[in-house]
Amino acid sequence: MKKKVLITTIPFGNPEPRPLELLNNAEIEYTINPFNRKITENDLKKIISDYDGLIAGTENISKEVIDLAPNLRIISRVGVGTDGVDLNYAKEKDIKVTYTPDAPGPAIAELAIGFMYSLLRSTHISNIQIRDGKWNRSIGRSFSDMTIGVIGAGRVGTKVINLINKIGCKKLLVSDIYQNEALRDKYRFEWASKDRVFSESDIITFHVPLSADAKGMVKKEELLSMKSDVLIVNTARGGIIDEEDLFTVMKSGHIGGAAIDVFNQEPYYGSLTKIDRCLLTPHIGSASRECRAKMELESVEEIIRFFNDKKLLSPVPETEYLLQKKLKT
Amino acid sequence: MKKKVLITTIPFGNPEPRPLELLNNAEIEYTINPFNRKITENDLKKIISDYDGLIAGTENISKEVIDLAPNLRIISRVGVGTDGVDLNYAKEKDIKVTYTPDAPGPAIAELAIGFMYSLLRSTHISNIQIRDGKWNRSIGRSFSDMTIGVIGAGRVGTKVINLINKIGCKKLLVSDIYQNEALRDKYRFEWASKDRVFSESDIITFHVPLSADAKGMVKKEELLSMKSDVLIVNTARGGIIDEEDLFTVMKSGHIGGAAIDVFNQEPYYGSLTKIDRCLLTPHIGSASRECRAKMELESVEEIIRFFNDKKLLSPVPETEYLLQKKLKT
Repeated sequence: MKKKVLITTIPFGNPEPRPLELLNNAEIEYTINPFNRKITENDLKKIISDYDGLIAGTENISKEVIDLAPNLRIISRVGVGTDGVDLNYAKEKDIKVTYTPDAPGPAIAELAIGFMYSLLRSTHISNIQIRDGKWNRSIGRSFSDMTIGVIGAGRVGTKVINLINKIGCKKLLVSDIYQNEALRDKYRFEWASKDRVFSESDIITFHVPLSADAKGMVKKEELLSMKSDVLIVNTARGGIIDEEDLFTVMKSGHIGGAAIDVFNQEPYYGSLTKIDRCLLTPHIGSASRECRAKMELESVEEIIRFFNDKKLLSPVPETEYLLQKKLKT
Repeated sequence: MKKKVLITTIPFGNPEPRPLELLNNAEIEYTINPFNRKITENDLKKIISDYDGLIAGTENISKEVIDLAPNLRIISRVGVGTDGVDLNYAKEKDIKVTYTPDAPGPAIAELAIGFMYSLLRSTHISNIQIRDGKWNRSIGRSFSDMTIGVIGAGRVGTKVINLINKIGCKKLLVSDIYQNEALRDKYRFEWASKDRVFSESDIITFHVPLSADAKGMVKKEELLSMKSDVLIVNTARGGIIDEEDLFTVMKSGHIGGAAIDVFNQEPYYGSLTKIDRCLLTPHIGSASRECRAKMELESVEEIIRFFNDKKLLSPVPETEYLLQKKLKT
């Protein structure tokens, strides 16, 4: 009998049709998210029972979802974050979980750099104002004159550091729990404590996974410790910066601008939409044509390997399972 | 008697007060644009008769304006374009014209690069959609995968080429009337005809002065010769791209996106505001804190030199006078 796979993340196979061709060639039946919007945990519960495999986005694949999926043997995440999947429960039920850790990095890094440029010149604000008949020439800042702070020097953070080095800024501060000294030989920056990054930077960009340490890392106190005209970029995970605190602090006039691509709950229609200085995008970090094509292809290839009893190339590593255990306790 | 100077470009002396301090120290009386919006030719006509010097923006300083300014001896342009000033008539009336050619380059180049990043990921569209309750994840493109075309390799164009070289793209095409071979030794790019840049580029950015050749350089025919998903950046001058043609062609679905900072008539409230794929800003190319401070300072220093009978540092060169003559005939 043909294996059946549910593809929840959309768009998929468009504009690059190759991933779907591979599934067809491998005689795997697939359904692309029939709800045609970001799938919810409840949506998943309704239809998951049919499927042997899941090509998944960032939606919650909880214990309850897994309990309703007796045939499910593999979850292949298109992307890198696995905080949506109950990894340890999946393991208990003998469901493999794979991901595409390297593919999204370049696109997320480019989005973060683009956010910095937009915030520096408030182009997102002007664009709305001109449409409202307002011609307000605001004075921006120069990239080259900025002290930039990077929180997290992992796969994406390193790419951001690399791009900032190429473009050139006044000073680059990097904070990470683990100070990988090999990075210091390759790039120009200063290791700094999180507190120092928060208090000294003109721009702060976040590139940490949603671990126990990262969840709620930035609340009112941290926001108020930053410069009053600081620019904040978050393309990592929504839980890192407390959204309500960010709203409250920005409403008070503190914080020069924030570009936020990731939210606690997505789709997001919360209070930050009331703040003009916020540039908001719908979790498009990895959504570049080139990067999506690579991710979709890699996730499909894992599914095909699995159903052909071949060795998986990118199973989610043990550390992620341990981190989730830690986060839950 | 104290010399009287009218400063038309706003904001001025804020946040950096040093230019105004210099005027005070030099005992020069000044008035900052009393209309508190972009000054028009008519505004100017009403008040110009009082002044000995003008610290000017991009407004039209026409023959008629000059005829109403019997005391005017110097026009010090804050910025680089001099197409607003009737140079040859000013010379006839023995009015010196100076400008600040080098100061705006870095800020304009950064705006152009930022525009490319925004267009590549449509962040300007998402930002409006989320505020309208729409969560549409569009698939963007990667900077590194782009063929980028630069029209004009002068002061600003060279800075853009330099930044693109640092960041890295697939192919860089450059078009200029004068192929300065010294540039080729310094940067990586290919000289190309304008037609080739138009037809082969994924991103096209304009960095030419509004000369006779540049005026109306891009009309319907040129727009239609471009790729259907091309991204267009204009931070140079409004007259280069025909705005109505751009509107018509974009409305038809051609052209992936356009970021426009400069318009034929400013303030601009025209039809491009109806096109979501346009990112529009109010002529903020040189509006960075660092760059404005430098330009304001340089323009004030020229005024002070002039009224103290010192040699001017940046008189507008003869070639600009000749170009205007050519443009008018």
